[in-house]
Amino acid sequence: VSRLRVHSFGISLEGYGAGPHQDLGNPLGVGGMALHEWHSGSVTFRRMVGQEGGATGIDDDFVARGFENIGAWIIGRNMFGPVRGPWPDDVWKGWWGENPPFHTPVFVLTHHARASFSMSGGTTFHFVTDGIHAALRRAVEAASGLDVRLGGGVATIRQYLRDGLIDEMHLAMSPILLGSGECLLQGVDAPKLGYQCSKHVSTSNVMHFVITKRAHTP
Amino acid sequence: VSRLRVHSFGISLEGYGAGPHQDLGNPLGVGGMALHEWHSGSVTFRRMVGQEGGATGIDDDFVARGFENIGAWIIGRNMFGPVRGPWPDDVWKGWWGENPPFHTPVFVLTHHARASFSMSGGTTFHFVTDGIHAALRRAVEAASGLDVRLGGGVATIRQYLRDGLIDEMHLAMSPILLGSGECLLQGVDAPKLGYQCSKHVSTSNVMHFVITKRAHTP
Repeated sequence: VSRLRVHSFGISLEGYGAGPHQDLGNPLGVGGMALHEWHSGSVTFRRMVGQEGGATGIDDDFVARGFENIGAWIIGRNMFGPVRGPWPDDVWKGWWGENPPFHTPVFVLTHHARASFSMSGGTTFHFVTDGIHAALRRAVEAASGLDVRLGGGVATIRQYLRDGLIDEMHLAMSPILLGSGECLLQGVDAPKLGYQCSKHVSTSNVMHFVITKRAHTP
Repeated sequence: VSRLRVHSFGISLEGYGAGPHQDLGNPLGVGGMALHEWHSGSVTFRRMVGQEGGATGIDDDFVARGFENIGAWIIGRNMFGPVRGPWPDDVWKGWWGENPPFHTPVFVLTHHARASFSMSGGTTFHFVTDGIHAALRRAVEAASGLDVRLGGGVATIRQYLRDGLIDEMHLAMSPILLGSGECLLQGVDAPKLGYQCSKHVSTSNVMHFVITKRAHTP
């Protein structure tokens, strides 16, 4: 059975998953990139984007685990790009260049239809206009028995969380204050939905915690 | 110069400093007591309340540091007790029995005047009806050069934080989800007020982090 997993999702001390004012220059909002430095400096991530070096250890182990056994991704439109409203053309192909680090089908949630297209390295972007449940069905089918990774952003994760569809969620809290941003967990009654914290460990960079869904929910 | 310090303030993974529905049976709201287990099990706290045994180590060090160099406390009325509105009588004398663990003057923020009274062990409760700034002035004066500890609850800390009056704040995040409660940090633009995270360390029980105010604020 495919599981829906969130990995390496960075939040601030206030619980914000992105800063305010996302745009082309600030894909994670103002200050939001700082939530991902522990991740982008890992040997696993650097290798994936064709760079040498990087840090190993607990942080890197968490990064690596997020790519294991994944057969498809689901991401929100804001994670795919800064374009809002109807697609003006097919020019925007994501933040990640010719060879995106997914290497699987990626289902992009959007209200505006667009034709699928493929990139180098096995990544194909599909655009889903009929909601989060439809996107999950298509991703599970595409994953062929492997798991589905839910990328983000905050609004996308909250939708899946509120419907109890996420099986496992690894969050990495950076010791920084953003001041304002999008709350990930506040206002969602996670324990009522069957979630609990199953693991927590800190490094010099971040505090990791893993939230999992109990097999039998109340 | 006296500093205003928060120590050992427990929050959930969502950033809630207390659970919902505080009453006599749930002084920290439903589920809120779980935020303090790391604290109440420490050798320092147990010794203060006349119990033997307890845990030593990093958690205990944080507990102990919260009582060093403290000459007065400020607490909100909800931390003092479950009584709301005008005081019906002088029967309620706090949650802590005959010998409360403060051993200093304690200034209780309230809208309803009440006469000061003293308990065993050096604790005297004073009731301040003219606001947080007046309470801080009186506490600093009573502390005679030592620091002032700000106890809680959430609403009290947020008031002092919003006015930039807190110098240091140690938070201990328990790896638990409360589902609902009172947010401590969300909606306060702490970096704009000059705050930053200056330390973070985790134990098997909690993730500690310390927020301090820069000497020169923007």
